[in-house]
Amino acid sequence: MNYTLYYSPSGASMAVHWMLIEMDIAFEARLTDIDTGAQRSAEYLRLNPAGRVPTLIVDGVPRHESAALLMLLAERHPDKGLAPAPGSPDRAEWLQLMIYLANTLLPAMRDWFYADEDGEPAGAEAVRTLARRRIEDGWARLDGHLADGRAYLVGGKLSTVDLLAVMLMRWSRNMPTPATTWPHLAPYIKRMRALPSFVEVNSREGLVDWLNPEA
Amino acid sequence: MNYTLYYSPSGASMAVHWMLIEMDIAFEARLTDIDTGAQRSAEYLRLNPAGRVPTLIVDGVPRHESAALLMLLAERHPDKGLAPAPGSPDRAEWLQLMIYLANTLLPAMRDWFYADEDGEPAGAEAVRTLARRRIEDGWARLDGHLADGRAYLVGGKLSTVDLLAVMLMRWSRNMPTPATTWPHLAPYIKRMRALPSFVEVNSREGLVDWLNPEA
Repeated sequence: MNYTLYYSPSGASMAVHWMLIEMDIAFEARLTDIDTGAQRSAEYLRLNPAGRVPTLIVDGVPRHESAALLMLLAERHPDKGLAPAPGSPDRAEWLQLMIYLANTLLPAMRDWFYADEDGEPAGAEAVRTLARRRIEDGWARLDGHLADGRAYLVGGKLSTVDLLAVMLMRWSRNMPTPATTWPHLAPYIKRMRALPSFVEVNSREGLVDWLNPEA
Repeated sequence: MNYTLYYSPSGASMAVHWMLIEMDIAFEARLTDIDTGAQRSAEYLRLNPAGRVPTLIVDGVPRHESAALLMLLAERHPDKGLAPAPGSPDRAEWLQLMIYLANTLLPAMRDWFYADEDGEPAGAEAVRTLARRRIEDGWARLDGHLADGRAYLVGGKLSTVDLLAVMLMRWSRNMPTPATTWPHLAPYIKRMRALPSFVEVNSREGLVDWLNPEA
């Protein structure tokens, strides 16, 4: 077994978990439920000193950062086609969107959910207000990106950008203006949620609250 | 000319500018001074709708996001050795640190410098307080990474991780606790500032306030 994923249901591990299922490769999944504080156990902190999920053990070495893990898995399994090949026409856009999601929406989501824990509780409302603005700006930008009717965010096929983006969109489901509110994001989300690998990762993580209605 | 860089002195373009000089390849540099609002000109917004620097024109197409541009340039010029090759032992750590810098220190720096502009002025102090905490946590983490005496952050040689990290460290120079305060960062910064390409990018951008003293 080359890969062991430490995951928490609905956490930042979900995109990596989804990708491993989508690629149909062997891996072991180990539950590290952040709702029970499992990420602060001495055993887990040895693998991930920051106490975050995911950790992916790759050839015996613990690796972190969900966006980096998606990029690493894409380049270790080029036959699975989840990233444009280096040198191909869509490569620059793929890199740009991976970084955009990682340096804009991902930290804004951190602010939205963890402003109290990361910072002073007295300042949390101000942090969340800015986070919400940035998240909604992000949905508007991605909505514009999909306005030409393209099925996927990059290169005309499923890529790690979609996996990361849809995980982030899912996190907005209980926000005042969830991603499903945007006109081009709504049908995109519906298509992505119809992927068997998305249904499967939700099933394995025990998640039932952001699935398409049964046909 | 394959590359045209739109840059603002001391801005997020600096790591890309530095890399182009370090690689010793042909490029054109076009000043887009954010202190004069040049990034909001109609001409520039056609290249970069978000009005940010850098923009790098690659084979005629405008590309954005400094971390993504560093990664793109590294893979377009593998002979320059500024990233571990795909499949090599240091590749996973390189990806992880590029993403860590992009999704933690880079957005925290955005908060530190642009809290008023991006959000409500009334909430800016709270946003900056959290940003400062995250930035200092980042210096402590990178300081620990260098505690074993390694000369560079990844793989025993200069990589895009160093270019991005040192640009971020430079931005802290007027903060209450600049990166140079940390015991292992200080000698690292001194070594990096001694690189001829670093001296040259400062010269080309007209920057004089974060250089090693003349020998």
